[in-house]
Amino acid sequence: MREVGVWFVGARGSVATTATLGAAAVKAGAAPPQGCVTESPDFPVGLVSIADLVFGGHDITECPLRKRAEQLSRAGVVPAGLPGLLAQDLDAADAEIRRGHVPGDGTQEAAAARLAGDIAGFRDRHGLARVVVVNVSSTEPPAAPRPEFRRLADLEARLAAGDDVLPASSLYAYAAFRAGCGYVEFTPSTGPALPALAELAELRAVPYAGRDGKTGETLIKSALAPMFAQRSLRVRSWSGLNLLGGGDGATLADPAARSSKTLSKERAVAGILGEPVEGETHIDYVEDLGEWKTAWDHVTFEGFLRVRMSLQFTWQGCDSALAAPLVLDLARLVARAHERGRYGVLADLAFFFKDPLGTDEHALAAQYARLRAFAADLAGDPS
Amino acid sequence: MREVGVWFVGARGSVATTATLGAAAVKAGAAPPQGCVTESPDFPVGLVSIADLVFGGHDITECPLRKRAEQLSRAGVVPAGLPGLLAQDLDAADAEIRRGHVPGDGTQEAAAARLAGDIAGFRDRHGLARVVVVNVSSTEPPAAPRPEFRRLADLEARLAAGDDVLPASSLYAYAAFRAGCGYVEFTPSTGPALPALAELAELRAVPYAGRDGKTGETLIKSALAPMFAQRSLRVRSWSGLNLLGGGDGATLADPAARSSKTLSKERAVAGILGEPVEGETHIDYVEDLGEWKTAWDHVTFEGFLRVRMSLQFTWQGCDSALAAPLVLDLARLVARAHERGRYGVLADLAFFFKDPLGTDEHALAAQYARLRAFAADLAGDPS
Amino acid sequence: MREVGVWFVGARGSVATTATLGAAAVKAGAAPPQGCVTESPDFPVGLVSIADLVFGGHDITECPLRKRAEQLSRAGVVPAGLPGLLAQDLDAADAEIRRGHVPGDGTQEAAAARLAGDIAGFRDRHGLARVVVVNVSSTEPPAAPRPEFRRLADLEARLAAGDDVLPASSLYAYAAFRAGCGYVEFTPSTGPALPALAELAELRAVPYAGRDGKTGETLIKSALAPMFAQRSLRVRSWSGLNLLGGGDGATLADPAARSSKTLSKERAVAGILGEPVEGETHIDYVEDLGEWKTAWDHVTFEGFLRVRMSLQFTWQGCDSALAAPLVLDLARLVARAHERGRYGVLADLAFFFKDPLGTDEHALAAQYARLRAFAADLAGDPS
Amino acid sequence: MREVGVWFVGARGSVATTATLGAAAVKAGAAPPQGCVTESPDFPVGLVSIADLVFGGHDITECPLRKRAEQLSRAGVVPAGLPGLLAQDLDAADAEIRRGHVPGDGTQEAAAARLAGDIAGFRDRHGLARVVVVNVSSTEPPAAPRPEFRRLADLEARLAAGDDVLPASSLYAYAAFRAGCGYVEFTPSTGPALPALAELAELRAVPYAGRDGKTGETLIKSALAPMFAQRSLRVRSWSGLNLLGGGDGATLADPAARSSKTLSKERAVAGILGEPVEGETHIDYVEDLGEWKTAWDHVTFEGFLRVRMSLQFTWQGCDSALAAPLVLDLARLVARAHERGRYGVLADLAFFFKDPLGTDEHALAAQYARLRAFAADLAGDPS
Repeated sequence: MREVGVWFVGARGSVATTATLGAAAVKAGAAPPQGCVTESPDFPVGLVSIADLVFGGHDITECPLRKRAEQLSRAGVVPAGLPGLLAQDLDAADAEIRRGHVPGDGTQEAAAARLAGDIAGFRDRHGLARVVVVNVSSTEPPAAPRPEFRRLADLEARLAAGDDVLPASSLYAYAAFRAGCGYVEFTPSTGPALPALAELAELRAVPYAGRDGKTGETLIKSALAPMFAQRSLRVRSWSGLNLLGGGDGATLADPAARSSKTLSKERAVAGILGEPVEGETHIDYVEDLGEWKTAWDHVTFEGFLRVRMSLQFTWQGCDSALAAPLVLDLARLVARAHERGRYGVLADLAFFFKDPLGTDEHALAAQYARLRAFAADLAGDPS
Repeated sequence: MREVGVWFVGARGSVATTATLGAAAVKAGAAPPQGCVTESPDFPVGLVSIADLVFGGHDITECPLRKRAEQLSRAGVVPAGLPGLLAQDLDAADAEIRRGHVPGDGTQEAAAARLAGDIAGFRDRHGLARVVVVNVSSTEPPAAPRPEFRRLADLEARLAAGDDVLPASSLYAYAAFRAGCGYVEFTPSTGPALPALAELAELRAVPYAGRDGKTGETLIKSALAPMFAQRSLRVRSWSGLNLLGGGDGATLADPAARSSKTLSKERAVAGILGEPVEGETHIDYVEDLGEWKTAWDHVTFEGFLRVRMSLQFTWQGCDSALAAPLVLDLARLVARAHERGRYGVLADLAFFFKDPLGTDEHALAAQYARLRAFAADLAGDPS
Repeated sequence: MREVGVWFVGARGSVATTATLGAAAVKAGAAPPQGCVTESPDFPVGLVSIADLVFGGHDITECPLRKRAEQLSRAGVVPAGLPGLLAQDLDAADAEIRRGHVPGDGTQEAAAARLAGDIAGFRDRHGLARVVVVNVSSTEPPAAPRPEFRRLADLEARLAAGDDVLPASSLYAYAAFRAGCGYVEFTPSTGPALPALAELAELRAVPYAGRDGKTGETLIKSALAPMFAQRSLRVRSWSGLNLLGGGDGATLADPAARSSKTLSKERAVAGILGEPVEGETHIDYVEDLGEWKTAWDHVTFEGFLRVRMSLQFTWQGCDSALAAPLVLDLARLVARAHERGRYGVLADLAFFFKDPLGTDEHALAAQYARLRAFAADLAGDPS
Repeated sequence: MREVGVWFVGARGSVATTATLGAAAVKAGAAPPQGCVTESPDFPVGLVSIADLVFGGHDITECPLRKRAEQLSRAGVVPAGLPGLLAQDLDAADAEIRRGHVPGDGTQEAAAARLAGDIAGFRDRHGLARVVVVNVSSTEPPAAPRPEFRRLADLEARLAAGDDVLPASSLYAYAAFRAGCGYVEFTPSTGPALPALAELAELRAVPYAGRDGKTGETLIKSALAPMFAQRSLRVRSWSGLNLLGGGDGATLADPAARSSKTLSKERAVAGILGEPVEGETHIDYVEDLGEWKTAWDHVTFEGFLRVRMSLQFTWQGCDSALAAPLVLDLARLVARAHERGRYGVLADLAFFFKDPLGTDEHALAAQYARLRAFAADLAGDPS
C-alpha cells in the first residue's frame, strides 16, 4: 500500500499533535508503537505502515505544531527532547494545516466546497493513494434532528439555499465524503451519523467509522461489564465521576457539550448487560489536571442468595496518549478498507468507540474478535 | 439426566454450607439462581437441574449444617430466615456427612478404601446416576514432588507399604477416582494434579477439573489483563493486597498455605500478557472481616510514547457467596461430561479456576467462549 | 441532672428510630455507647446519662417505630433481635409521637401554637426538667431571604396575618423556642438560622446549635484539610461524588434540596484552607445502597518545587448509625447548656456540623478542642 | 541569625539533592517555599532564612549533584530547566561533599574523628555559626542492643579498642555530636537513639531530633486516626500496602531494612488509639514507580450498635518532594534551638516524624500545636 494521508479536523489539538509527533517518533525509531492496536502480532500485515502516513488538517487556531508539542512535553504527555528532535516532521505537517470553517464565515455550502478542496489539494500535492479525515476537534452539543437530515437531496437543497443546517462535525464529514475520503468520527459529535450523509458515503463509495474514542472509563466498563454477565452476577448500580483537565475538559464545562459525552458513556453498560442499570456518570472539568484524567467508578452487584457486593476502580490516564495511537490505527484500517472497496459504516471498528456506529456490540472481547476477523478479511482480499 | 450427587470434602465449611442451602433455596423458589453461570441463556439445556442435586460429604468437624447456616446468616452471607425455612434440607445433607480422614488415624491406604466406600454408599442409598466429589476444604501448603507421584503403580506400591505419601487433597481425589466419581479441586491444593492420579482417572474413565476457584481479585485480573494486551498498553507492574476474613483467611495466616494461593494468583497476569510482570500479591488474614474479603490492586502501564498511567481497583466480596454457585455449576458440568463419556482433565472448565489444569488460557472472555462451546458440545451429543 | 426529653422532628425516620432504639440498648446494657462522643474519657461527668433520656417527637407518617426498627434491622443498621428485645421502649416513644405540620393544614401561626403545645405536653407528662428539640427530618431546598426574617416583630406580624412565610424547619424551631426548649438543627435546612429566631431564642433564653450533622465525607475533609495546611502543601482541586441510598438520598434526588447539602459540604475545605479550591461535590441518590452511603474524594495538591501529587479516599458508612449517637450527644450537651443558663447559638458545638452556626471553624481537631473546653466549662459551673 | 550549615549524610541521594536544589530555587525566587512548614504565617520570624543555608555532606557515591539533579528532573521530581539554571549552587554544594565511611575502611574510632573533622572544616571554611547534620541516607536494618550502648564511657572504651560496634547512622550521630553539631535522624535507623549518645549530646550541649520523616501513609494515618478516637468510632483493623520506587524502595527490598520501616509505621495508629489494632503494613519495592510512591490503606471500624463501616485511601506522592522541605524546616529549627541553648532530644519536633524520639504523641494536630508553641518559645527568647 502506498502512502496514506491523515487529515485531522482539529489538527493543532492535543490528540492530533501527539499523533503527528508520535508517528514521526515511531518512523525515526525513537519510540515503540506502543498503544497501537494494529501493531500487535494478532494483526496480519497489509496495513500501510506508520512511517508511510502523511499528516495535514484543518484548525481554527494558529499556534504552530512545534509550540503545541513543546506544551505537551512540559505537561508530561510526550517525552522531553522529542519535539526538538522531530521539529522537521512537525513543520512539514504544520505546512499542511488549513484554516477550518468558522460560523458566519460564508455559507456552509461554500465552506464545504472549500474544505473538500483543501483535502483534495493535500492528496494531490503528495500523490497520495488515499486520505482519511479524522475528527479530533472539540465536542459539540447534541444536534436537534431536522427533516432534511433524512435524505441527501433535501440536505443539499437546504445548503444550496444558503441555510447552515449542519452541525460543524457533519459539515466536515460532508466535505470529506465529497472529496472521496474515508472519515472517522473520534468525538461524540454527530459527524457522519445522519441518514443523508450515509447516503452520500454510499454514493461516493467511501467508508466511515465512529463514534467517540473509547480511551478510559468506558474502556474499563466494556472489559468489566461482560464479566458480571458471564458470572450471572446482577449489576444493581453503576456510578461514575470523570475528572478531565485540558482542552477537552474545558469544552465539557459547557453542560450541552457534556451531555453528548455523558449519553455516549452511559450506553455501554446497559448495552452489555441487556437491561438499564441505576446510576449516573458525571463529567467534571478540573483545570488543574492538565492533560490528564481520572475516573472513579463504583459498581454494586448481587450474587448468590442476593448477597450485595461492590467493585470500585480508579483510572488515571493521559487522554492524548491514549487517543493518539488509536487514531493512527483507525486511519490505517479505514484506508485499507477503502482500498479494498468497502464503503459505508464500518461496524467492525466498534472496538475503538464508546458509541459504535452500525452495531450495538459494546463488550470489549467480542469487539476485539470482530476487529481481528475484519483485519484478516481485509488482508486476505486479493489486491 | 437423573439425580446427581454432590459430595463435598469440607462439607461443613462456609462454601459447602452456602451451596447446600442455596440449592435448596433455588429448588424451593426462595431465591433466583443468581451467580450460577450455567443458568444463563448462553447455556443449552441438558445439565441436571439444581433441584435434582443431592448433597453429602466428608468433614472433620461436628457442627451441624443447620447451626453453620445460622452462623452464615448472622454474618450476612445468607438471608435471615432461610436456614430455618430450609432446615429439613440441611438436616438431610447433614445425615449424609461422614467423618473425614485425620492424619494418624490409620494408613492412607485404609483411609482411601473407607472414604471411597462412604461415597459409593451415598450413591447407592440414593440410587444416583453419578456423584461428583468437590474439594472445598482448607488450603494445604504446596506439596514437595516425590518420585512415586509419577506412576500409579509406584504410588499404590508405596501406599500398600503403609507409607502415607499423599497430600490430603490428593487422598480424596484418589478415593473419588477409586469410587468411579468425577472430581473438582476448588482449592489451590494438589488434589488430582499428580501424573499417577491422572493415570487412575483415565483407567476409571472419570473426568476431573481444577484448580482454585476464581472468585475475586483473580477474576477481575483475568477480565482486565486482556484489555491491556488488546490495546497494546504495556503493563509495567501489578501489585495487590488481599484482605481475607473467615475460615479461609485463618488457614492462610499460615505462610506455607498462603504460598499455594499466592502462586496460583500470580500466574494469571503473566499468563495473559505473555511476559513476567513486576509486583507482588499479598494475602493477609484480617479476622475482623468475617466472611468477607477486600482486594486492592494497583497496575502501572505504559502507553504511546511511553507515557506512564495507572489503574486501581477495590473488590469487596463475600467469598462463600461467590464460590457456592460455581461449585454447583462445576458439579453439574462434570456430571454431564461423565455421562457423555468424557474423562481425564477437563481443560474447558478453565473459566472457573485461578490455576486451570490442562491449559494455560487465563483470559476470561476466551475461557468463557471455550466453556460455552464445551457445554454446547455436551448438549449436542446423542444420549 | 434529672431526666431530659429528646423531641425529634422526623421521629419515625431512620436517624430518630436508630437513636431511640440505641439509647434503649445502651440503657439495657445490650450495646456499648460506641459512636457517642461525650461518653469518651475526654469528657467530664455532668451530662444527663443516656439512660435518663425520654423520647418523643413529630412526624407526618404513621409507620410504628417497632416496624421501622425491624426495617432497619433487615438493612443491617441495627442488630437482628434488638427491635424485639426493646419493643417496650419503642412503643413508649411511639406513644409520644404527634402528627407534624403539613402545609395547607391551617396557618403556620396556628401550627406553631399546636406544635409548641405538643412539646410542652410531653414535658409536663413526664415531669422533665428540660426538652431539646432535634430536627432530623428531610432536607429542604434553600429558603429565599425575606425582609420579615430580620426582626421577630416583623415575622410575628406576618404570621399573625396568616402568611405562611417560614420554611418548615424554621417553623419547628419557632415552636421549640416558644415552648422554651433548646433546638438542634441536624439537617442542612434553615431551622433557627434567621435573625428573627435568634432574637426569640435570646428572649426565651434558650440555646440552639446547628447545622447539618457531619457524619461522613465532610468529617474526613475536616480531618484531612488541616493536614495540607499544616504541611504547607497547596491543595489545587478537591472533587467528590457522594452516593446515598435510603430516605435522605431520595429527598436529595430533588436538585433543590440537594443544593442545600452541596453548599454545606463545600464550605469546609475552603474554610480550612483559607482560599477557594477548584472542584465540585456531587450527590447522587442510588436507591440500591439502602441505608448506606459511599463517598469518593479526589484531591490534587502541590508540594515542593510545585510537584503535583494526589490523595483519594472512599468512605463507606451507614448514615443512621453515624448520625444517631451524635444526636444523643447534642441533646445532652444542649440540655446541660440550657440548665447552666447558656442561650443563643452554641458555636462551641461546631465539631458536630458541616456548616456550623456561629463560627467559621471547620478544622476537626480545633473543633474538638473547643468542644472539650466547652464541656469542661459546663461541668465546672456551680449548680 | 547568621548563615547556618546543613550537612547531609547521603548528600548525593534524592532527598538531599532535592533539598539543595530547592533551597537554591527559593533563594533565586524561582519557586515558592511550598511544603516548608516553617514558612507558614503560623510561625514567628527568627529562624535562619532558607537563603542563608549552606550545604555540604558525606556520601559514598561519586555522581555529581548536577547530574543527580538532572536525573530527578527527568523523573518529574524537579522542574525541567531548574538544574541548569542553578548549576552553580549545585556545584558549590558538590565541592563540600566528602567521602562517607565504608565498613572495613579503618576503625570506627578513626572514622569518627575524620567525619567530625570534615564537618568542622566545613563550618570553619564558611565561618558558619552552626551546622546541623541530617541523615537522609539509606535505611539500615534494626540494630541489636549491646551493653556498651548504655553508657558513653563503655561505648568509647569499645571504640578505642578498635571494635566497630556502632550502626552506621549512630557513627554519624556520634561524629556530629563530637563536632558540636545538632543532628536530625530523618531515616528509621538507630542514629542518636542510644543512651550513650544521648549522654554525649548532653555533654556537648547539642540538640537532636528524629526519627523517620513522616511524608506519606503515616502522615495520613496521624491525621485520620484521631478522628476515629474523637468520634468514639472503634477501629477494628488497619491494613496497608506501600509501593515504593526509587532508591529508598530498593533498599527496602531487603527484608531486614524493611522491618525497621514497618515497625516505625505501625506505631502511629496504636499510639493514637491507645490499643493494638489488627492488620499489617506491607512495603513493596516496585522499581517501575521511580521516584514515586503509592500507598493504599484499608480501615474497618465499628460505630453505634456495632455497625461495621470502612474507609480506604490511596496516597500518591513523590518521596523526595515531600521530604526535602521538611529537611530544611528541621535544619532551621534545630539550628535555632542550638542557638537558644537547647540540647538533648527535641521531642517538640514530633510533627515531622513517624517514630518521634522523646514522646509518644502521634496525633498530627497535637504535634502541630506543640511545634507552634516550641517555635514561639524559641522566637521569644532574648538573643
